[in-house]
Amino acid sequence: MLQLNNNAQFLGMEAPYEDAQVVVFGIPFDGTTSNRPGTRFASAAIRLESVGLETYSPLLDLDLEDANVMDAGDVGLSIGDTPRVMEEIKAVTAQILKDGKIPFMVGGEHLVTLPVVEAVFEKYPDVHIIHFDAHTDLRDTFNNNKLSHATVIRRIHDFLGDGRIFQFGIRSGTKEEFDFARVHNHVYMEPHTMNTLPEVIASLKGKKVYVTIDLDCLDPSVFPGTGTPEPGGLTYREYQTLFTQLKDADLELVGADIVELSPHYDPSGVSTVVGAKSLRDLSLVLDHKSK
Amino acid sequence: MLQLNNNAQFLGMEAPYEDAQVVVFGIPFDGTTSNRPGTRFASAAIRLESVGLETYSPLLDLDLEDANVMDAGDVGLSIGDTPRVMEEIKAVTAQILKDGKIPFMVGGEHLVTLPVVEAVFEKYPDVHIIHFDAHTDLRDTFNNNKLSHATVIRRIHDFLGDGRIFQFGIRSGTKEEFDFARVHNHVYMEPHTMNTLPEVIASLKGKKVYVTIDLDCLDPSVFPGTGTPEPGGLTYREYQTLFTQLKDADLELVGADIVELSPHYDPSGVSTVVGAKSLRDLSLVLDHKSK
Amino acid sequence: MLQLNNNAQFLGMEAPYEDAQVVVFGIPFDGTTSNRPGTRFASAAIRLESVGLETYSPLLDLDLEDANVMDAGDVGLSIGDTPRVMEEIKAVTAQILKDGKIPFMVGGEHLVTLPVVEAVFEKYPDVHIIHFDAHTDLRDTFNNNKLSHATVIRRIHDFLGDGRIFQFGIRSGTKEEFDFARVHNHVYMEPHTMNTLPEVIASLKGKKVYVTIDLDCLDPSVFPGTGTPEPGGLTYREYQTLFTQLKDADLELVGADIVELSPHYDPSGVSTVVGAKSLRDLSLVLDHKSK
Amino acid sequence: MLQLNNNAQFLGMEAPYEDAQVVVFGIPFDGTTSNRPGTRFASAAIRLESVGLETYSPLLDLDLEDANVMDAGDVGLSIGDTPRVMEEIKAVTAQILKDGKIPFMVGGEHLVTLPVVEAVFEKYPDVHIIHFDAHTDLRDTFNNNKLSHATVIRRIHDFLGDGRIFQFGIRSGTKEEFDFARVHNHVYMEPHTMNTLPEVIASLKGKKVYVTIDLDCLDPSVFPGTGTPEPGGLTYREYQTLFTQLKDADLELVGADIVELSPHYDPSGVSTVVGAKSLRDLSLVLDHKSK
Amino acid sequence: MLQLNNNAQFLGMEAPYEDAQVVVFGIPFDGTTSNRPGTRFASAAIRLESVGLETYSPLLDLDLEDANVMDAGDVGLSIGDTPRVMEEIKAVTAQILKDGKIPFMVGGEHLVTLPVVEAVFEKYPDVHIIHFDAHTDLRDTFNNNKLSHATVIRRIHDFLGDGRIFQFGIRSGTKEEFDFARVHNHVYMEPHTMNTLPEVIASLKGKKVYVTIDLDCLDPSVFPGTGTPEPGGLTYREYQTLFTQLKDADLELVGADIVELSPHYDPSGVSTVVGAKSLRDLSLVLDHKSK
Amino acid sequence: MLQLNNNAQFLGMEAPYEDAQVVVFGIPFDGTTSNRPGTRFASAAIRLESVGLETYSPLLDLDLEDANVMDAGDVGLSIGDTPRVMEEIKAVTAQILKDGKIPFMVGGEHLVTLPVVEAVFEKYPDVHIIHFDAHTDLRDTFNNNKLSHATVIRRIHDFLGDGRIFQFGIRSGTKEEFDFARVHNHVYMEPHTMNTLPEVIASLKGKKVYVTIDLDCLDPSVFPGTGTPEPGGLTYREYQTLFTQLKDADLELVGADIVELSPHYDPSGVSTVVGAKSLRDLSLVLDHKSK
Repeated sequence: MLQLNNNAQFLGMEAPYEDAQVVVFGIPFDGTTSNRPGTRFASAAIRLESVGLETYSPLLDLDLEDANVMDAGDVGLSIGDTPRVMEEIKAVTAQILKDGKIPFMVGGEHLVTLPVVEAVFEKYPDVHIIHFDAHTDLRDTFNNNKLSHATVIRRIHDFLGDGRIFQFGIRSGTKEEFDFARVHNHVYMEPHTMNTLPEVIASLKGKKVYVTIDLDCLDPSVFPGTGTPEPGGLTYREYQTLFTQLKDADLELVGADIVELSPHYDPSGVSTVVGAKSLRDLSLVLDHKSK
Repeated sequence: MLQLNNNAQFLGMEAPYEDAQVVVFGIPFDGTTSNRPGTRFASAAIRLESVGLETYSPLLDLDLEDANVMDAGDVGLSIGDTPRVMEEIKAVTAQILKDGKIPFMVGGEHLVTLPVVEAVFEKYPDVHIIHFDAHTDLRDTFNNNKLSHATVIRRIHDFLGDGRIFQFGIRSGTKEEFDFARVHNHVYMEPHTMNTLPEVIASLKGKKVYVTIDLDCLDPSVFPGTGTPEPGGLTYREYQTLFTQLKDADLELVGADIVELSPHYDPSGVSTVVGAKSLRDLSLVLDHKSK
Repeated sequence: MLQLNNNAQFLGMEAPYEDAQVVVFGIPFDGTTSNRPGTRFASAAIRLESVGLETYSPLLDLDLEDANVMDAGDVGLSIGDTPRVMEEIKAVTAQILKDGKIPFMVGGEHLVTLPVVEAVFEKYPDVHIIHFDAHTDLRDTFNNNKLSHATVIRRIHDFLGDGRIFQFGIRSGTKEEFDFARVHNHVYMEPHTMNTLPEVIASLKGKKVYVTIDLDCLDPSVFPGTGTPEPGGLTYREYQTLFTQLKDADLELVGADIVELSPHYDPSGVSTVVGAKSLRDLSLVLDHKSK
Repeated sequence: MLQLNNNAQFLGMEAPYEDAQVVVFGIPFDGTTSNRPGTRFASAAIRLESVGLETYSPLLDLDLEDANVMDAGDVGLSIGDTPRVMEEIKAVTAQILKDGKIPFMVGGEHLVTLPVVEAVFEKYPDVHIIHFDAHTDLRDTFNNNKLSHATVIRRIHDFLGDGRIFQFGIRSGTKEEFDFARVHNHVYMEPHTMNTLPEVIASLKGKKVYVTIDLDCLDPSVFPGTGTPEPGGLTYREYQTLFTQLKDADLELVGADIVELSPHYDPSGVSTVVGAKSLRDLSLVLDHKSK
Repeated sequence: MLQLNNNAQFLGMEAPYEDAQVVVFGIPFDGTTSNRPGTRFASAAIRLESVGLETYSPLLDLDLEDANVMDAGDVGLSIGDTPRVMEEIKAVTAQILKDGKIPFMVGGEHLVTLPVVEAVFEKYPDVHIIHFDAHTDLRDTFNNNKLSHATVIRRIHDFLGDGRIFQFGIRSGTKEEFDFARVHNHVYMEPHTMNTLPEVIASLKGKKVYVTIDLDCLDPSVFPGTGTPEPGGLTYREYQTLFTQLKDADLELVGADIVELSPHYDPSGVSTVVGAKSLRDLSLVLDHKSK
Repeated sequence: MLQLNNNAQFLGMEAPYEDAQVVVFGIPFDGTTSNRPGTRFASAAIRLESVGLETYSPLLDLDLEDANVMDAGDVGLSIGDTPRVMEEIKAVTAQILKDGKIPFMVGGEHLVTLPVVEAVFEKYPDVHIIHFDAHTDLRDTFNNNKLSHATVIRRIHDFLGDGRIFQFGIRSGTKEEFDFARVHNHVYMEPHTMNTLPEVIASLKGKKVYVTIDLDCLDPSVFPGTGTPEPGGLTYREYQTLFTQLKDADLELVGADIVELSPHYDPSGVSTVVGAKSLRDLSLVLDHKSK
């Protein structure tokens, strides 16, 4: 029998499903993207790029070889029928949660976070959200659309309510969105930076937490590969303290995602490396804390 | 009062709407594109590129400066709601037809041809279609979707019926699509080449004809800027005989479109020039024949 | 009558000329560029990119929808005849000033700042210049040429004299240029950084000030799209304090420009976003302070 | 149990190894490439691109869904130790041949054809070679090296001898290489074109034949993605008659390869599509003739 | 003493000046380019790319190793002062001619052909011009400019007069330019193709001939790297018969140039290879015929 | 006699070999690169780019015009035979050292530092190494290979022993490599940053020091042009303090290199500028301290 390389999975994420604590899956969807599309290519690009990484994270002193993480591949989607795509994503997430594992979704545009959080919310109604992004994503509608990458956090707020969502790095939005967050206190928002993350993490002590990272929270200098880059963002060194802070935090991580990598816009491949390294490091944290 | 350059219109297509015989409009839509997106950027790229062209076509010995063509800009679309987008396109086309002018649509993905032809069909129920493409676009559904760039000619066949559609350059599709065309004779199909175009044009003598050009009918050597390039296509020299043949043909042109330019995939800009030159030359033919 | 989108103007800069406080215009000229050309494409690229921005600036808490800014388009130029191009730019600037509005020029290479400042100087002989750049631009000649992107500030010094020009971010030049500035104190120069900007702004209390921003003052990590990138520059976060400091400053802004974006050298588009965001935010400041 | 998409194999090449008539495998090696490297990325790029293809070939009227083709993945290689890499490739090929299947190798640089043909030669000592290429590859040494992409056909000639190798499309080489082929008649060579292919195929009646395609035989207009492009090559339409001629030929195909795709040099992706379509169509021919 | 590689010259063009029959020199100038600049980079790119070529041309059966060709490097230019640049180019050409050698200029934009032909004309007042191009270059002025890439052949006609200039491949221009050539017979023009080249060469029997090749005569499929690509041009196979026809022609070649390669617009590098191969093959012809 | 520009050397590095204090040479080798190749193109790209720089460094207040630096070109290499390439590099370095000059090598991949340091070690057995890098390069074997870009510092440690190597900026490697350095104290390693460089330099007082800079120590935001980018690295402003600290340090610099620039991965050209500026500034320091 012939035994060759396959490279279908992210490097070092080869745990059998039965043993996996963390299950990674890709959502190649960018159907509501209003400006430059391409996040549909992110999960495949990240897998391909992972061969250039080590399984060991010096930042965290953790190694994927000692972790139980499985890259399950991409979810098949009915492209063109957005409500149905939402159901397909939610069903996969619910299955992973039902099997007692932690879902880690790789987008796609930010809208795909919605069905993942819906499934998480059904299992953990008291879940809190840590949200990194350049944009508020708090519009009520966009292009006459309730379901959009620009409305996703507003939709999540619809069922989570006030006091549950904590935004960092925000530096773009309409005046209405900033007022919704700031004036009405619906959402905790730290514009531009992530300086208050330690206090927020401390305030979430013992809570169940879902982490959604729109990678455009990073400055486009280190992450140009995204549809709507916004200068003035986080440096990678600032950003990676998210992983070390979460590793040491007294809270339970019940799910995570990274979204909005659009690999074609960065021919150097650096943005894809940023996505791959974020996936490796945050997976290591999820696995580590679940033990 | 200050008077500066504006460059909002395609070079030489500046007739007032009242005087225009041919009205060009853009449809920046690629919502059902299954593979590589980006045709939403085509109409803006073509306008920008037009400054590198001349208004005079040596091939046709016609000049836009002597023609009555207006570039009306892009249609505002409810991106994300495909059925509604279809209606918006149809309404604009119907308006142009009602005002006694010839519509020339610049896509966008090929699906946007559907509402244009629907509007044309309502005015001219006996319209025939000349269709240049690499792909048959004859599927009944694609990704469980009736409205798709891969089903558009099938949808047009739904209401036009047999004997009305003439395809050239086709070199990709499922076995079912080829059988639909060939075995059942629903659609005239010339695979790979356009050698029989003279006979087809002769057979359409005196008829009303709509021309839809999926620019990927061209070989990707000269038109790489498209989502699904298919090698083995038409050379530009073959292709441009379409314009000279139409100029001399004994038939009435009642509308036209060029679709599927995805400018970002061709950093040399040649594909956009091909789009711009096609728009110039086919507009000149439409204007010339309408006089 | 048909009413479609046009997109000829920068997003939100659609005030009628009569009402406009700030008039933006583009100068697509790079005729003396010695190294990599391409700044001629900057103004068109910035307009196209502006659709990805919001009209609201969270940094400044100001919105273009509440401002009186007009994007007037590009000035027609006699490319190839540099002295005549200089006159054409000066004439447009003088007209805007005569009509009581504030000119905001979008280059183009840095040489095009010269005729704008000449027109401003004729109206405001006591004008001071805040100059952000990687390069001193203080040569007397370059390639045997008095009129060059590398001599522009020296030419301005010719008529403004000592004590009027304040440079920040400088990190490249000949020994002679640094000596001209530093040893002879002809020009205030802060190399590498912008740390002393608050003192300089304080010292300009009540003065009329023109701001010229060569965007290559920014580090090429966030602004690679320029002909002569110089590592070691300003981060975007440092840079954007220019706008907040100016907003609160006790001085009168009588004109501004941003120059040296060469969009083709940055395929990610981030550099163009930096240009667009700079234009939005500095326009907002100019408009705000003029009220 | 979770069942997601995997996309590890070329579209439609999913036969179990037991049932497969044709076994495709990738060799990501470009270790002796003297000019521009990158063919190591070809097999992964072709797999990824295959989703944009159909399984049906209108040219051949054959469908991968009716064929027994397996994409077995990439061979693990000791990169940096060229002789050992040669052994690893030969071992895999020999295994496939021993199991009664037809090997189809996807390079990598052209040197990797050598061990494949060595294994084929050991099973079929009377094998003949049809060789498409822009370059003769007939040097005795290159950079003082016996094992090189520029010497591979000379090395094959070392053990196959005269009268066994048939070259088409050749348009680059040293005078010595052309003399070796032409003057001494060691190798049949048709420079520039493939016009004599029908006669050659007729002369190989009943013979066992291996086909090696250096994709740079194609004109760089349609295949720019290669390390050493040579203008003046085959058009895709000429080239694809290779497949139809082989389909109808009275000879036995015992193995094949396509080499020298370097996907990064063609940002449009067309070259990768050419590789994918060549792999699909030639696989269909191999499968069809083996039945 | 240390002896390392230098690579300052085109591969195989290393004859000492004393011995050289053909002297190649570069003119990195694109100062009047109206659309996309970048031909200033052509000569350096061609030299760098030449290492991927052989010195032997199978097309011509000639080898640079047997020829007396010298690559003399680039001419230093007073960029920004077009009239002075013209003089600098003319002086170098006159020197080469005075020393009894054949000048071969590598542009740069097409305007730089003017001073070369002026110098040739002063030595050979009866010179005839074979001109390959997509554009007529017959305007009298362009952007109010007498000296422009779009007027260069008109300027040459000014002193050469009727019956001396033979154009091939032309497919773009204003109606006035085509009328100037066709209606008034000032210039022989074959639009679109080069089919009549044999007759023209025959008619030039015994004459002194200068060859100017604007590489955009080629179809942009194989030569996308140019500022103003025009689809519908020559294939490389057609084009290269120019070299074989000239090799066998009964006329004297007194100079040549290739212009309008803009290497940055073709990231695959194919356009630069086309330039390098043209330079090699035409140099071989010039050298061969001069013996 | 004809005297044109040649541009074969880095700007301002034109000292005759006899007078040179510092001799720069290029090693276009990337034969063991496991991931993305291309560093073979670095030295040629840096030379070409140097025309955009000044000879004067404002950071150091030193000018190449006052220094004795010679760019000697690239070393000819037997590509494909790694052990022999190592000997060729060592021989050139030894020659330069024997002639009393300081070698400055421009890679190529990091493996090429090994033979340079071997030659330096033979002259100066007490040499210490300052090493900037993102990766430890401390593996014992990689791909079963003792000679690899991933093992180079381990190979140097083999003969230098403990206490001689000082690493900064490290943020990637296997657990075994970090343990080798940290646990066993074989090598001084500062992960992520270069904060302790002043102490290290102080501790090297009076010592002979060789500096090897893998440019991927820089954050990929400012240096994306490398095969294996690692986010989280040094900013350019941090990095350039290396040069000012070395200028003022009380130690003897006996050699240096910069490696791992892969120019094709950064189409903006910024990475090449970073390489060129590093070469200029570190050459100036080497020259300055040798006087």
